[in-house]
Amino acid sequence: MSFKSDIEIAREANKKPIQEIGARLGMTSDDLLPYGHDKAKVSQAFINSVQGNKTGKLILVTAINPTPAGEGKTTTTVGLGDGLNAIGKKAAICIREASLGPCFGMKGGAAGGGYAQVVPMEEMNLHFTGDFHAITSAHNLLAAMIDNHIYWGNELEIDERRVVWRRVLDMNDRALRDVVTSLGGVANGFPRQTGFDITVASEVMAILCLATSLKDLQQRLGDIIVASRRDKSPIYARDIKADGAMTVLLKDAMQPNLVQTLENNPAFVHGGPFANIAHGCNSVIATTTALKTADYVVTEAGFGADLGAEKFMNIKCRKAGLAPDCVVLVATVRAMKMNGGVAKADLGTEDVAAVQEGCANLGRHIGNLKSFGVPVVVAINHFSGDSVAEVQAVIDYVETQGSEAILCTHWAEGSKGAIALATRVAEIADSGISQFAPLYEDDLSLFEKIECVAKRIYHADEVLADQSVRNQLKDWEAAGYGNLPVCMAKTQYSFTTDPNRRGAPTGHSVPVREVRLSAGAGFVVVICGEIMTMPGLPRVPSAETIMLNDLGQIEGLF
Amino acid sequence: MSFKSDIEIAREANKKPIQEIGARLGMTSDDLLPYGHDKAKVSQAFINSVQGNKTGKLILVTAINPTPAGEGKTTTTVGLGDGLNAIGKKAAICIREASLGPCFGMKGGAAGGGYAQVVPMEEMNLHFTGDFHAITSAHNLLAAMIDNHIYWGNELEIDERRVVWRRVLDMNDRALRDVVTSLGGVANGFPRQTGFDITVASEVMAILCLATSLKDLQQRLGDIIVASRRDKSPIYARDIKADGAMTVLLKDAMQPNLVQTLENNPAFVHGGPFANIAHGCNSVIATTTALKTADYVVTEAGFGADLGAEKFMNIKCRKAGLAPDCVVLVATVRAMKMNGGVAKADLGTEDVAAVQEGCANLGRHIGNLKSFGVPVVVAINHFSGDSVAEVQAVIDYVETQGSEAILCTHWAEGSKGAIALATRVAEIADSGISQFAPLYEDDLSLFEKIECVAKRIYHADEVLADQSVRNQLKDWEAAGYGNLPVCMAKTQYSFTTDPNRRGAPTGHSVPVREVRLSAGAGFVVVICGEIMTMPGLPRVPSAETIMLNDLGQIEGLF
Repeated sequence: MSFKSDIEIAREANKKPIQEIGARLGMTSDDLLPYGHDKAKVSQAFINSVQGNKTGKLILVTAINPTPAGEGKTTTTVGLGDGLNAIGKKAAICIREASLGPCFGMKGGAAGGGYAQVVPMEEMNLHFTGDFHAITSAHNLLAAMIDNHIYWGNELEIDERRVVWRRVLDMNDRALRDVVTSLGGVANGFPRQTGFDITVASEVMAILCLATSLKDLQQRLGDIIVASRRDKSPIYARDIKADGAMTVLLKDAMQPNLVQTLENNPAFVHGGPFANIAHGCNSVIATTTALKTADYVVTEAGFGADLGAEKFMNIKCRKAGLAPDCVVLVATVRAMKMNGGVAKADLGTEDVAAVQEGCANLGRHIGNLKSFGVPVVVAINHFSGDSVAEVQAVIDYVETQGSEAILCTHWAEGSKGAIALATRVAEIADSGISQFAPLYEDDLSLFEKIECVAKRIYHADEVLADQSVRNQLKDWEAAGYGNLPVCMAKTQYSFTTDPNRRGAPTGHSVPVREVRLSAGAGFVVVICGEIMTMPGLPRVPSAETIMLNDLGQIEGLF
Repeated sequence: MSFKSDIEIAREANKKPIQEIGARLGMTSDDLLPYGHDKAKVSQAFINSVQGNKTGKLILVTAINPTPAGEGKTTTTVGLGDGLNAIGKKAAICIREASLGPCFGMKGGAAGGGYAQVVPMEEMNLHFTGDFHAITSAHNLLAAMIDNHIYWGNELEIDERRVVWRRVLDMNDRALRDVVTSLGGVANGFPRQTGFDITVASEVMAILCLATSLKDLQQRLGDIIVASRRDKSPIYARDIKADGAMTVLLKDAMQPNLVQTLENNPAFVHGGPFANIAHGCNSVIATTTALKTADYVVTEAGFGADLGAEKFMNIKCRKAGLAPDCVVLVATVRAMKMNGGVAKADLGTEDVAAVQEGCANLGRHIGNLKSFGVPVVVAINHFSGDSVAEVQAVIDYVETQGSEAILCTHWAEGSKGAIALATRVAEIADSGISQFAPLYEDDLSLFEKIECVAKRIYHADEVLADQSVRNQLKDWEAAGYGNLPVCMAKTQYSFTTDPNRRGAPTGHSVPVREVRLSAGAGFVVVICGEIMTMPGLPRVPSAETIMLNDLGQIEGLF
């Protein structure tokens, strides 16, 4: 059997006009702002009109720690959404938008795979509806206004050494990580050292994804801390008078984007914050709009459950008043084997013992998720080389953890391969057994919140932090930021801060290198280890082979 | 009588669905890629399908040297287009897209004014259909790939001191004019001095506006010179293998945008290159598509006729095989007065003598335009304070120059105010009397081309240039670039290089400070005086007062 590539399958998609997709959710043509024939933004008027509707069931898809073998979290999100529709449920999916920059490096797209994809795939991986460009503009307008304020006399007495607001581009460009600006003399301002991050790392991105309305958006943008004075008192974006213009630039970007799966089911694709220095979920406004228009909403969180699901629950759900009715934890036989010590090159050989060994990682995630009070189903995303015995080993293991695992073949078969999963997930969601609660209360101290996540999710013995970090946290508490949740930034490959420690390690510590206040987004970022906020291009970037073919189709993007 | 503001008039617009506007030009719904309900991109399939149609008449709107009094060139372009439709002609207009960055500084929009506007005005001054963002991405991808090539071993032997490709942002940000990149150690590359220009100054912008197809686009992108080796041999974007991916990023941006005037007539708004270091016209693909779908196409060129019209004729028409059938030269009584020495504060007082004095500027432009073999009509864009005697003075003067002037009131009255102009322009265009020819032949030397423009358009005595400039031009001729036209970059406020010399000065020289080769766009840029390619924000940027009002409307943008 020879497989078609994702792009070949996507090109054969029988897309319906986006108005037909919207109609399934009660949207008229006027409620949709079309971008071409297969993408649209949902109007604010429509969103306002559905606020009185009943709220659908919320299903979170998360995964074990990612391995080079690939887990298929987005693929499972799409497959489950299609599966729910296939069994007669009214379901929509909610996923993040892809960042343009990394597509020209080596990352593939972020629209699912096989027969469980969202289309139009190429456009979703390029400019899509321009949301990320709008975020780039809003972010950089604020940066320009800060330097402009200093240039014209610095009435606010900004300490030029303490401007923390950098600039952003949606591009992998290591040369911009660390730069000196305003060279060239008097007319260009006061030279200072700063840098660029990739757009998805912008606090504006995190804000857009947590804001509940344009008014809330402007409030949060105004709350951004951009610099401080010599006495360390903060300067806000509001002081620079940038919040109004930034909101204008983000007006359209705030509206959720509607597209469709290969099976013509509705998919909201909106927002895409980093899952390390930010919370890594699609926008609140997309999720809540989906919940008011569909009976079941399947969404996903970034990276593995230790980072993505933890933040989904402790940041997004807490802030937006959401509560998942069921959590689907994606695992693969291949990833279990890698967690059990098998090298990537040897994954083709059956090794039940290694699968069993690697299941410890899966087991810990199940336990962690249950500690939020939510029911957990494991979806085994099937790969063609998986043996029956290996699959059974995972199923048996999950049973010992008081949960259940279901084999899924949506990658090869679309919704048909996710019927069993969809049926069981709908049953659980409908049963109302979820008793969701965030892991910690708002009034815990910031350091205690860090300890709570480190001990209960990472299973670490302790949190290590210099006195300067502890003092900084206390200063923020004194300034009224103590009630914020913490946003952990650590490697996604391990429960520990060492990317090489697979499985379910114990006896480790979590060293906190730095803490940052995202006052607009509303969380304290806790940086454990090296976190890269501006990627570089590889030796042979995929950009070198991306081009239009003679039919005008895009080659090399995936 | 109290006047409504441009934005108030624009908000009251009775817009039709963009599909209805397209239908007037023979486009079906499938031929249009909608962006919302009032903007669309014209599909490549449609453009291909109309190539066999007859070609409409081309009318260029240009102006005297701009003064702070405002001339209303775009307003007249829109008014004339509406006027032609009002007298039963099938007419379309073609104008440039606005740059987002300057709207947050102090520049107003670029969509006409009064009752001669193109809508949706707010969106045209913000993200519009994302074309400029796509250009920013394509430009910066090339920049990232250059530094990445050096980082991974510099196989092409790029001389890091001779990288001429800078980066761009669509933002007024003086801090980025001159920067040092790649600081921070080994992982970030080799530090070097470079900078950012505003997106409209990108050679990619000029290329997009001159390219006739996606294939031509990729060819031109590949031809961009990005750096040179120690032996000064050029490195092309093609050597960096960026041309394919850049073309993919620009795929949608290449398609012309269709919007409408307040009177629901079709308007193509596409591309927006600088009018100093580039040629300052809307895209060739929009103009040619308009000519194949309408009987009359009204377009405009940047700045005054000495810069904009000269480049329209010598660069755009030459390269695209276009020939204007009539030229409309916009003048105002107020601008004539300022050219006659009246200060802006005193413009309200009748001063026929000053008008007569200032007409010298108008007269020179008429003569210059006629030297291209084209018929010239002067449009007097009426302002409410203009006296009858002042208007008559302009009409009488123009008659002495062997041309004719027509008073227009489209700003206050829409098409009704441009009926006389439209009737006369249509007569002239239909008569076939235009005998257009560019001012110089391709095979003149580059320096002779500069002299030709300086002497025949600017009426200068001589061109001053260092030997190094002259040698550079000879080197490019030896390298095969001698057949390119020249693109003059000088102040728009005077025929000379001194912005304060109004009227029709003589006895001056044109000092050439620097020459640059835009090998992809296909012209040699000749820089005379200071040219700013990255603007700054003023002391009180308009961004400070731009915001959404309680109705969700944008305030402060205009």
